[in-house]
Parts: sequence; C-alpha cells; structure tokens
Amino acid sequence: MRATVLYGPRDVRVEDRAKPNIQKPTDAIIRLAAACVCGSDLWPYRGTDVVTQPTPMGHEYVGGVDEIGSEVTELKVGDFVVGSFFASDNTCEICQAGYQTSCIHREGVSGAQSEFMRVPLADGTLVATPAMPEADKIPSLLAASDVLGTGWFGAVAAEVGPGKTVAVVGDGAVGLLAVLAAQQLGAERIIAMSRHKDRQRLATEFGATDIVVERGDEGVAKIKELTGGLGAHSVIEAVGTQESMMQAIRATRPGGHVGYVGVAHDVSLDGLELFFSHVHLHGGPAPVRDYLPRLIDLILRGEINPGKVFDLELPLDEAAEAYRVMDERRAIKVLLRP
Amino acid sequence: MRATVLYGPRDVRVEDRAKPNIQKPTDAIIRLAAACVCGSDLWPYRGTDVVTQPTPMGHEYVGGVDEIGSEVTELKVGDFVVGSFFASDNTCEICQAGYQTSCIHREGVSGAQSEFMRVPLADGTLVATPAMPEADKIPSLLAASDVLGTGWFGAVAAEVGPGKTVAVVGDGAVGLLAVLAAQQLGAERIIAMSRHKDRQRLATEFGATDIVVERGDEGVAKIKELTGGLGAHSVIEAVGTQESMMQAIRATRPGGHVGYVGVAHDVSLDGLELFFSHVHLHGGPAPVRDYLPRLIDLILRGEINPGKVFDLELPLDEAAEAYRVMDERRAIKVLLRP
Repeated sequence: MRATVLYGPRDVRVEDRAKPNIQKPTDAIIRLAAACVCGSDLWPYRGTDVVTQPTPMGHEYVGGVDEIGSEVTELKVGDFVVGSFFASDNTCEICQAGYQTSCIHREGVSGAQSEFMRVPLADGTLVATPAMPEADKIPSLLAASDVLGTGWFGAVAAEVGPGKTVAVVGDGAVGLLAVLAAQQLGAERIIAMSRHKDRQRLATEFGATDIVVERGDEGVAKIKELTGGLGAHSVIEAVGTQESMMQAIRATRPGGHVGYVGVAHDVSLDGLELFFSHVHLHGGPAPVRDYLPRLIDLILRGEINPGKVFDLELPLDEAAEAYRVMDERRAIKVLLRP
Repeated sequence: MRATVLYGPRDVRVEDRAKPNIQKPTDAIIRLAAACVCGSDLWPYRGTDVVTQPTPMGHEYVGGVDEIGSEVTELKVGDFVVGSFFASDNTCEICQAGYQTSCIHREGVSGAQSEFMRVPLADGTLVATPAMPEADKIPSLLAASDVLGTGWFGAVAAEVGPGKTVAVVGDGAVGLLAVLAAQQLGAERIIAMSRHKDRQRLATEFGATDIVVERGDEGVAKIKELTGGLGAHSVIEAVGTQESMMQAIRATRPGGHVGYVGVAHDVSLDGLELFFSHVHLHGGPAPVRDYLPRLIDLILRGEINPGKVFDLELPLDEAAEAYRVMDERRAIKVLLRP
C-alpha cells in the first residue's frame, strides 16, 4: 500500500509499505476514505520535534472497517468509522470521566496518511456512523476526528456557555473550529484573533462576532477594550507557543477560564503571574472519543459543516506538497485522498 | 500606638507609630482584638521578597470598628469585624463573580500586627459579627480572615465535594485548614501530607482520613498507591514552591483538579507536562470576603474550630519572637495580642 513517511525535517515521502495486520485481538484495520495533515504534524516536519527514524505519519482518519480482531464486538467489517488520535478502552475510570486521551490503556495512533491503518482498542476508539455517509460529509467527519474535537474540547475546557464572551487565540483549523464549537455551545460573543482575510471570513461563517487582528500585548489590550477592561470570560488557546499561551491567560478576566489545546512547545508558565491572574487553566489532548457521537450527529444532520476548513485537496501521493502548503500557511488544512 | 515593622531580613521591631487616620470616606479604622503572623510574612522576613523600606506588617485581623469614613454605610463604630487581606468594593463584576481579591478597585491591607489599622473600602471588605463574640471564638474568627479562607478557596478551586478523594500538600495553617474545608465540603477521603506528629494530629482532628509522610516523587507515588494508581480527584497546594506545585500536579488524576493557594515563589510550570497531565489548575489569592459570612456562621455556631491552628500566643510586643518561632517551624501559627 501507499503510505506517508517522515524521514527528517521537511523530508516527507510517500512510499510502498506492507499493509498493516491485526496484532492484538482488540485491533481493527481501516481502509482510509480520507486523511489529512495536522498542525501538530508540522512540529516534526519543521524539526522542532526530532524524528530519529522514518516515521509513518497521520492521526486523523475516517474510513471503512477492513478487518477486526477476535475481541472486537462493537464494530463489523464494512462499518464506516471515525476515530480519535489516541486509542482508548473507553471503560476505565478515566475514560468514564470523559478523559479518553488519558485512558489507562492509552496508545498512540499513527499511519493515517496512507491507504490502510491499524487502530488499537477499536471498540473504545472508533465510532461507526449509522450508515455509509454521503461523499460530501466525508471532510466534516474527518474534521471531527481531530481538529473539530480538539476545538470543541478547547471550548468545553474554557467553560464556554450562554452569556459568555469567548476569545479564540489561533486561526488554524483548530482555532476556527473552536469558534464553531463556541457558537454551538451558546456563547454570546465570540472574538476570533486572526490577521488573515480568508480565515477571518471562515471564522465569521462559523459564528465569530468580532475579529481582532492584533497579537501579543496589543491583542490582549484589544480584548480588554472589547470587554469593559475585564477580559473575556473564556479564552481558547489553539497554537501552543509561549506567546499564544500568555496572550490567552492575559486576555482572560480574573475567575475566567482558559482552555488550551495547542500542543505546548517550549512553554513555561511563571507561577506568580498565574497565581495573580486568577484564571482557571485546563486543556491537553482533546478527548475526541467523548464528543464523537454528538459531533457525528451534528454533521450528518447538516447542523455544522466543519469540513470547510479543508481548502485544498490532494491525492495521497502528493503528501509532501500538502506539508509544504500547510507549513507555508498557503492552505488552512489539506485533505488527502488515498 | 504599638506596631510591628519589618526593617529587613529577620529584623522585626515593635515600635511606636502614629495611629492611622481615615484617609478616604470609604475607610474604617479598626482597633485590633488579635492579629497573627502569616506564612506569607516569612517570605520578606527571610529576604526572599525584598523589603526596601521599613514596612508595617500584618494582614490578618479581627477587631472593633473605632472610626468610619463618611461614606461607610454597612458598619458602625463598635461593630466587631473580620476582614480580608485585600480590600474590595464587593460590587464590581469581578467581585460579584466571587473574585473579590481581584476586585477592579483592589487595595492591599497591611499593618494588622499593631493596635490600630486602616482598612480601605470598609463596606466591601469587612464583615460584622451579629454581636460581640465570646473570647474563645476570637482565634477562630482571626483564622477566618486569611488561613481558613485561603484553605477554603483551595478546596473550592480543587472542586472538592462528595465522593471525592482529596490530597493536601502542605501542613502549615493553610494546609491544615484546607483539610477542615475539604471535610466541610463533603470529601469522601482526605489525605494530609505531613511529617510532623503535632500537625498530623491536628489534620486528623480536622478530618484527614489518611496521612502521607513522603514528599516529592515518593509522595506522588504514595498518593497514586492510595488511589488505585490514578491519583486524587482534588489536590490542594498550600506551600508555593516548585516542589510542592509539581507534587500537587503529579498527584492529581487526569481530569482532576489542583487548587493552589501557596503564593508561588520561583515556580515555573512546563507547558508540555501540564498539557499531558490533563489536570484543571486554579488558584491565587483567596477571595476570603466571599466566604466570610459562611465561615463566621460556622464558627459562631461551634461547627468548626479553626482557631486550633494557633498553638502559641504572645503579646504584640514580642512579635519578633513570633516571627522567629514561625520561621523555625516551632509553632504552626502564632497569635499576637495587642
């Protein structure tokens, strides 16, 4: 089969590899219907995260169940499924509390930018759609697998709700879908922070009521200005840098909530500033599995269209170009067709 | 009047100073019935926080209203009051949300280790008792002014409640009273982390069900061992050092809550570790004003006796000895009688 492999910084190759096999009785093999490149894939692509050996890439996926292990009971061959980027048993105490991405049996999922992939703990990780979805729903279901679920968790972690003013730091796919999540969760006002016209437009389409183009301290000052000097009730951080994290914390009013979902890189929080900020801080890897049933339902009923974040589609064999385009921010998110 | 002044590291003097006056129409002057030395007073005492000029000390106080400004309407001369260590208007949006210590008109309160003190924003800062309290309630009411209120906020920030397993890092007065707060808030199990027999005994009296003597990584391992490998639901951090903060975060299960109330000194949190810890983090200066009515009521009805943290009482003139004893941890907390 064809699969995308990262060999080192900016060295993405699509090559022939053996089709994965069932390794444990709880595994499933998925034939990918679509895959994509994640903002977090850019960390190893850029060399920020060091890759020491050729690494199969991709952790966002939708597709048909091709094969199941002997202990898989909730799924059958032919089901169309959406999965999460961490495999979970969905039964342990941590999963039951809604933190499947910290499941006591958690396993990473990888190799989704290819024709087939192996998903561990299939019953606890994958959610089947009621029927084969129409082709135009595939991008949205693929978005649910990570970026939508992650934006959603950001909004949940930031305690978004009716009457709240929400600010979103980051205009990548996750940030834009955090806007959509905030709108779905009933936020009164949603401030998207973006300097790019096309992303501003999509943010507005997803429910943003205000756009702030300033960044850093100026961005914070602008949020304060828009909120009577107090800061937003809820701020979603969807980048993962020191600047974006501090922007989120400082734009939040005392007693307010920061939901952070950008994978933190070289971020260090000063204890004393955090202490006097009086904010709530919560985040981490989004428990997408927890939200998938609701998200799939919203998508299939046509209530939301998160697939709009895919503004470029390429065949799997052009994965290297997909990384390039994402790296240079020439596209918000690239969908790959195996 | 006699007042305690810090001149520099370990240089505490009790000296004659002018009695404070009403400076703003919202001020009140309090005749102190009792005062005390706070764990946070030890930071400047030890030179960790640098004092650049002679500084009147003390921010925990109970006493009688001696004088009021022309705009004070909720209090009258002769009232017995309990106050908070930050003055607040108690009417702004932040106060109304329960974060009086981040009030938009917040002012520091100081000079409580003396005969008289000035309290700004008296209506929003002080709470009067229904009648003159009996002498044996004074220590408990004094505790409510800071250490009890702070431990209480730690428990609230850690989302302590029925069915929860709570761990408390720190066995100073705040940590011990966080145990009491956790018990009052219905925790199922309360693990106090302490190596000192007398403090362990008081923790047990306040409601601790388990004692852990280990610290740091060993303390974390012990908490995990006591909680089926998962960590506590709620952990209260009541020290403010790097070690205690990491101990708190690492002892909390994914999805659990850390409530931190130790004033963070040289604490730096690694973004990536925090990200994957999946904990909720909340804390800061306790909005004692918000809890005072409830705490005063619990104390006057004899439901709680937080005054037990005072294991030494000295006349105000011996304040230097009080600091010494606290610094050397020969007493949990010292009460000063003006």
